[in-house]
Order: sequence, then C-alpha cells, then structure tokens
Amino acid sequence: MKKITILFVLIMFSVFNAHSQKKENATATFETSKNEITNMMLQQTKDWSNGDVDAFMEGYIKSDDLKFVGSNGLTYGWDKTLKNYKKSYPSKEHMGALTFNLLEFDQLAKDVFLVIGEFHLKRTVGDADGMFSIILKRIKGEWKIIADHSS
Amino acid sequence: MKKITILFVLIMFSVFNAHSQKKENATATFETSKNEITNMMLQQTKDWSNGDVDAFMEGYIKSDDLKFVGSNGLTYGWDKTLKNYKKSYPSKEHMGALTFNLLEFDQLAKDVFLVIGEFHLKRTVGDADGMFSIILKRIKGEWKIIADHSS
Repeated sequence: MKKITILFVLIMFSVFNAHSQKKENATATFETSKNEITNMMLQQTKDWSNGDVDAFMEGYIKSDDLKFVGSNGLTYGWDKTLKNYKKSYPSKEHMGALTFNLLEFDQLAKDVFLVIGEFHLKRTVGDADGMFSIILKRIKGEWKIIADHSS
Repeated sequence: MKKITILFVLIMFSVFNAHSQKKENATATFETSKNEITNMMLQQTKDWSNGDVDAFMEGYIKSDDLKFVGSNGLTYGWDKTLKNYKKSYPSKEHMGALTFNLLEFDQLAKDVFLVIGEFHLKRTVGDADGMFSIILKRIKGEWKIIADHSS
C-alpha cells in the first residue's frame, strides 16, 4: 500500500514537472521567436534605408505563393512584390530611412506569427507612414513573411 | 523468412495506408473549414445588409484581444470594433448592401486560417470598397475573426 502511494506521488510529481516544463518552453519559444523576428525586421529597416530593396526582400518567402495586399489590391509572388516596391520607390530619396514600430506579436502556431506594426519613412521628398499586418513562418530555421497587408 | 517478408509487407502497407488517409483527411479538413468560413461570412453580409451591425459582429471573437487595423490604426477589443463600425456607418443608408469576394484561403494551422478578400458596399450615399485580410480561429467549433486588417 505504501509502495503504491509513493508511486502515485512520484507519477503526479513527474506529470506536474512535465507540465511546468512545457509552459516554460512555450514562453521561451515565444520570446525567442519574437526576438528572432524583431532582429530580422531590424535588418530589413537597415537594408531599406541603405537603398537595397533586394536585401530588404530577403525577409519575404521567395515563392510565387507570397501574398501582398497593398494599394494595388492582392498581388502574388516574390518577383511581383519586388517589382512593385521598385516601381513605388524608384530612388534612394523615395525610399528614405525606414523604421518599424512593432505593436503586436501573436503566435498562431508553433512556427507561425502574426505581427502588426507601423512603418515610418523619413524622406527628403516628404515623409510617409502606415500600418502593416504580416504573417511570418519559420522555414528551415528562418522567419519569412508569407503574407503582407500594408495600408 | 517468409513470415518476416509478409510481416514487412503488411507493415509497409499499413504505413502507406495511414499516410494517404492522413492526406485525404487534411484535404477534407481544408475544404470543410473553407465552406464553414464562407458560410459564416455569407451570414455576415446578410446581417450587415439588414442594417444589423450587432449580428454582423458575431463573426468576431467577443474578446478584448480582438485586433482591428483600419483607418484608425490598430484598435483592440470587440466593444471598440463595434463602436467604430457604428460611428463610421451611422445609418442603414451608410451601411448599404455588403458583398465579399473571397480571394484566398490559407490554412496556417489546424484551426487557424488567413482569408484575403475584397468588400463592396452598394449604397445610395455612394459605393465603397476595399481589401481585407482576416485571421480566423475555430473556437468551440465556430470560426471567429481574431484579427482584421481592412483598407
């Protein structure tokens, strides 16, 4: 009888332990992911502000499946998104200095995040700003934007 | 030896079978979810077009955590979203007849979808239209919008 009680306590202890471990891991995963995404997007602002749209585009999934919702409605694909950026921002002056204000990180699945933020462009041709909602997916260890709605 | 071969074939067969079963289930889940979301949103257009914003709002998660990105930037909560809708569309004439054109269904996780579409408002006070990207989550068997970016 005593043995059974001890066994029961041990089982309950390990269940409880596994549970708190899992919770800690979930928090760690969230914070780690948030930091990784923030770093990726910080790199994007540097690349953009250097006038390097191609490097900036490394943040997006290089696929025909990429979705971009902007002033042109819904467009598909990495190539089309790059083309539209180059059309809308034809020079370093039009690109200006980019900063993001990341307002919201929402973990939708283990490797999927929704990030909502503001973008600001400080420019000699007149500042510009707006809002974005992006879906990011961790692919082969790297966070890539798979859908972007900017307005 | 023969017995081992038969056992191996049986195991491989069951593995293969389980795999195709899983694929079929995934497709069925996608199509079922797509239909459920489409029906929910069709109900939204009916409620809106009847001038019933409160019924339309049933499509959104009734939580302070709801995110809405629109002309006011990012706002939080079901109550605030309802309030903003009532402010922007003060009468049945301002609400008009709503239709959605659902362009894209993207399954982000088992119970999470990204839906991108166009909205059209046919109104006597002048038509209006735009784009939306919404994140939906299946909660207690019902699809609810947890984040909406409209522009």
